[in-house]
Amino acid sequence: MYPIEEFLARTPRVPLLTGPTPLHPMARFFSGLGVDAYIKRDDLTGIGPGGNKIRSLEFLLGQGIAEGCDRVLAAGPGQSNLCTLTAAACARLGLECELIHNCFRPKEIQGNLLLNELLQVKSHFLGPVTSEERSAYTEQLYQTYLQQGAHPFIIRNGATSGRGALGYTAAVQEMITQCRQQNISSMTIFAPGGNGGVAAGLIYGNALMGNPFRIVIVSVEDTEAVLEAHITTAIREAEEITGIPCPAPVNQLCEITDCYRGDGWGMNTPDSARMVKEFARQEGIFIENIYNSKVLVGMRDWIMEGKASGAVCYLHTGGFGSLFSQY
Amino acid sequence: MYPIEEFLARTPRVPLLTGPTPLHPMARFFSGLGVDAYIKRDDLTGIGPGGNKIRSLEFLLGQGIAEGCDRVLAAGPGQSNLCTLTAAACARLGLECELIHNCFRPKEIQGNLLLNELLQVKSHFLGPVTSEERSAYTEQLYQTYLQQGAHPFIIRNGATSGRGALGYTAAVQEMITQCRQQNISSMTIFAPGGNGGVAAGLIYGNALMGNPFRIVIVSVEDTEAVLEAHITTAIREAEEITGIPCPAPVNQLCEITDCYRGDGWGMNTPDSARMVKEFARQEGIFIENIYNSKVLVGMRDWIMEGKASGAVCYLHTGGFGSLFSQY
Repeated sequence: MYPIEEFLARTPRVPLLTGPTPLHPMARFFSGLGVDAYIKRDDLTGIGPGGNKIRSLEFLLGQGIAEGCDRVLAAGPGQSNLCTLTAAACARLGLECELIHNCFRPKEIQGNLLLNELLQVKSHFLGPVTSEERSAYTEQLYQTYLQQGAHPFIIRNGATSGRGALGYTAAVQEMITQCRQQNISSMTIFAPGGNGGVAAGLIYGNALMGNPFRIVIVSVEDTEAVLEAHITTAIREAEEITGIPCPAPVNQLCEITDCYRGDGWGMNTPDSARMVKEFARQEGIFIENIYNSKVLVGMRDWIMEGKASGAVCYLHTGGFGSLFSQY
Repeated sequence: MYPIEEFLARTPRVPLLTGPTPLHPMARFFSGLGVDAYIKRDDLTGIGPGGNKIRSLEFLLGQGIAEGCDRVLAAGPGQSNLCTLTAAACARLGLECELIHNCFRPKEIQGNLLLNELLQVKSHFLGPVTSEERSAYTEQLYQTYLQQGAHPFIIRNGATSGRGALGYTAAVQEMITQCRQQNISSMTIFAPGGNGGVAAGLIYGNALMGNPFRIVIVSVEDTEAVLEAHITTAIREAEEITGIPCPAPVNQLCEITDCYRGDGWGMNTPDSARMVKEFARQEGIFIENIYNSKVLVGMRDWIMEGKASGAVCYLHTGGFGSLFSQY
């Protein structure tokens, strides 16, 4: 057992996943390209509409509960997956939850906002303020609850933090087991890089568990340098929590590409828009328009250019709830 | 091994499920009611938006492929889960698919119709014709393809047929294994009764594998007598396919209640509408408004009235795609 596994076993964590998410072969999308293509189904994490953030919430809410919190605050844009998943996870755990959005409440409620309404979560619509203003409002709300004697807990920075990243460190463990069971060796994992939480957890876990995987991070938002800095920050935070140093800098532990991000956060690209339909048409699986579809565009390019071969795996991070608001 | 298991192992079947769907304890919804409440997550069947019909399609499309089909026809209302799941399964299998709907194409495409569009499936919108007229159109389309030398295959009656029912016969096998692994004994399963496919498969499988479960069917549509007749028809068809007789009439193998159907097919009830929100709020899991929410209403009543105790299980049949068109 690696030291990081011992740490994961003893750190606070609430079980939210229904079990290991499926890792299964793709049917058709990469056929003829000479690879063994797999998909890791973190769209099937089983709380709310599913998605990657459930893994981070296992550790973040675990910490919150260990600290005796009775109320969780999460902030994001209206269609934020993190917000909906936090609300759903809190429902399951019996914790009060409030969401803070930097948009007006739309007249027609769709996608994740509809799900938030079904979850009957209290939502603050601040109008089109900046994310800094949204954070300031959230921190002030936190202080207000503190002064009232309540025990609030904030999910900061979209769950991207050292503790949140542990979710994907634990996912590395899960995938090692699955690859052993399925006789998959030397797998290359393609994962998204937004604010870097998924990437940080994967990279840190992979480095601390014997480097079983090659990791390619497809930036959906920022330049390579900015994303690398985000990932490094989250890993530094994780090191502080675990006391286990990451053995090398990020750029020696993964490859990052920023060629597929288009105009960055919240925007699709012509290729990513086509990819949603192509992938549905070939696999019968839905991805979404502005985030994880870009990863698949990059992954296909890399494979076609011969930059990845053998076993390759697309990490499906979910977003099914937001899909319904994107058309 | 029971004879039905031997039959299931040798009859045509295409793998569509990503693996056994999770069977896990509920968190809060039934707490304080003195039962051990579980949920069987057939919303997580992993193709398209997920749902129960994927199990039927494993056997139906398995048969179609065994017969050399190259094109699949499925019919239903616009928000039909069966239609979307058939389109998604065909995408995965590389089969052409056409959908026939008895409605006009709405100006605003939502829910499953949006998913169908992403799947780029050919859809026939017949306007508000009866389901008989829809069937007649489908059969005519089938004949046209036959005459053209193609090999079409129809998913008839919303996948409710003897062969479609085998999906839930196989699910009984899966649940027996899961209950053994989790040390669950004497479980009561609450499942929906619409046109009877899920119920028929469960009842038939349970009867032929030693009656491990007590089965309660909550009608979402018809009177007890009509639903019982539907179930019996599907079981008769299954017997013809397998050659294995069902050992007793339906009313000796399950309990059926028709107290929760309200105005029947496609309509919610005040209780079922509330239940969507209550369940989301307690478990962080989404059900939908007109079908499987009624089962949960009935299940809670039965438990509160002392008619079910010990281990109880809600069979979540999915419908997440249609939820987005219900509000």
